[in-house]
Amino acid sequence: MIDTPYLLFLGDAPDQLAAKVAQGIRDWRPDNVIGQFRMDGCKADVKVADMDLAGAKASGAKTLVVGVANRGGVISSSWKRVLIEALAEGFDIASGLHNLLNDEPDLVAVAKEYGRTLHDVRIPTVDYPIANGVKRSGKRCLAVGTDCSAGKMYTALAMDKEMKARGLKSSFRATGQTGILVTGDGVPLDAVIADFMAGAVEWLTPDNDEDHWDMIEGQGSLFHVSYSGVTMALIHGGQPDALILSHEPTRTHMRGLPSYSLPTLEQLRDTALPLARIANPKAEVVGISVNTAALGEDEALQCLADIEKRMGLPTADPFRQGAGRLCDALEAM
Amino acid sequence: MIDTPYLLFLGDAPDQLAAKVAQGIRDWRPDNVIGQFRMDGCKADVKVADMDLAGAKASGAKTLVVGVANRGGVISSSWKRVLIEALAEGFDIASGLHNLLNDEPDLVAVAKEYGRTLHDVRIPTVDYPIANGVKRSGKRCLAVGTDCSAGKMYTALAMDKEMKARGLKSSFRATGQTGILVTGDGVPLDAVIADFMAGAVEWLTPDNDEDHWDMIEGQGSLFHVSYSGVTMALIHGGQPDALILSHEPTRTHMRGLPSYSLPTLEQLRDTALPLARIANPKAEVVGISVNTAALGEDEALQCLADIEKRMGLPTADPFRQGAGRLCDALEAM
Repeated sequence: MIDTPYLLFLGDAPDQLAAKVAQGIRDWRPDNVIGQFRMDGCKADVKVADMDLAGAKASGAKTLVVGVANRGGVISSSWKRVLIEALAEGFDIASGLHNLLNDEPDLVAVAKEYGRTLHDVRIPTVDYPIANGVKRSGKRCLAVGTDCSAGKMYTALAMDKEMKARGLKSSFRATGQTGILVTGDGVPLDAVIADFMAGAVEWLTPDNDEDHWDMIEGQGSLFHVSYSGVTMALIHGGQPDALILSHEPTRTHMRGLPSYSLPTLEQLRDTALPLARIANPKAEVVGISVNTAALGEDEALQCLADIEKRMGLPTADPFRQGAGRLCDALEAM
Repeated sequence: MIDTPYLLFLGDAPDQLAAKVAQGIRDWRPDNVIGQFRMDGCKADVKVADMDLAGAKASGAKTLVVGVANRGGVISSSWKRVLIEALAEGFDIASGLHNLLNDEPDLVAVAKEYGRTLHDVRIPTVDYPIANGVKRSGKRCLAVGTDCSAGKMYTALAMDKEMKARGLKSSFRATGQTGILVTGDGVPLDAVIADFMAGAVEWLTPDNDEDHWDMIEGQGSLFHVSYSGVTMALIHGGQPDALILSHEPTRTHMRGLPSYSLPTLEQLRDTALPLARIANPKAEVVGISVNTAALGEDEALQCLADIEKRMGLPTADPFRQGAGRLCDALEAM
């Protein structure tokens, strides 16, 4: 569990895209954000107050979150100077970088000296159990994709936000680095040991009030041969009551696999639902989320209408249209 | 890769079952075995020459393999004395125990002193790649079960032995601790990090001659919610051409999951085959292996005949009847 609120470290981000983790935190958990720290030459701006370390500390910030991708996969010496100063100032640091904070001896030494914590959210810190398959109380929703990176995290975050806006009980359950930094906790599922994947998901989504929804962040795809095992563990560990099908309509092949074509939404439905019913016989596919970012407005609306007609399920692009109709489908269950 | 031949360490095994790893090595790779080392009070015997360390070394043994389960999960002091003497005598040691050899400082120190290797086959020692899904040359066979522990390893070992007896090209590809000790290498798949599971299986079963069969050891079950992700990675990383359905007909619920009933063989076929065809469009279900150990001879033969008639596929218990008909099915492809 990462202490909030955050000061977002944007470093010397070369463009806005490099700061997408910071942007995600800003978009989905603005209450967790005190301000942003930008170094000279930073080209990103997530539109919160610029602060120095002392100022942010005085305003109550607890953790400096690395909200920017690093170039070349290393923590540069200019970043390092800021991170060390932050530890001395009393901040914990959280990062999802491949270059782990805990692999940097100087950061480790300074953190120890000041009694601070270095959170590498790519690395599990919990000894997860082996899944026991026991039915848990409360409701769970999981997005499954025709491919990786089809908008599953965005869908879960948007649905969680909408459910809360309606005064309903909902928790976003992060299973990846960005999601964990957004919410402050979760399971880095792709880094969990094989035998404990489904157990980690059970741990992440424990018994809850019967009218509470866990919005579980999806990973991979049953049709993506590199990561399908992770998706399978989410379906069986998550025991979803509701499945959302996620799709990106302009993709020509599976991400990173040029010789693999995408399944149809019908194939995804007919594959995922029987597998989900092994763990939860009441599971249903309740809606479709389509990432239409690559389409113009008219084309996007036509695409959504076509899919809705074909599949007979509420179909929306949560970014373009909000998650209202997908949440209606949950409420109707 | 563990150096062969082996001296099998049976320790003070309280009964024959405790030495089942040693028995497996003896049954499946007798050429790898020089002899057995039994301590006072050992109640197991795998019917090979009893040897002391010096005698086995003089006969060419390279590795002392812990072929016995330990009581209480710890390496006892009486075992420890033998293991240390073996290192001094010039043996490597290999073990699949939960209590890792490499977690014992005295063993580590002595191994270092004598330049010997401690193989803990539960722990991956390779940085496996992420799966790339590229079609590999050669043929592959994978057993998938209605449940865990339904006889998948035995089936793969028996089919490998039969294929070799026919003069055909075949390799057993181990994915679990026992299989790795039997053959001297493999991937401890349940201990691999989630993102690399399918890649580890690709690494294990590389390009090969077009008429060569990899007999891949199965793990878990698509219907076992604790381990289904591991099974999924085997199906997609393994790219099997041939699937064998494995079943234990007397089981009343999924292993360790009292509230889960077993799927039918039809459900298993209809679930596994479409998933396998994502990675290998030519995949076929070619036979059924039934573990009839809990049935008497007449009952077993009736059970096998009933399943064969119902499913329309060659059905055999490889332990009771040999793997001939299953291998016929591979040859007929």
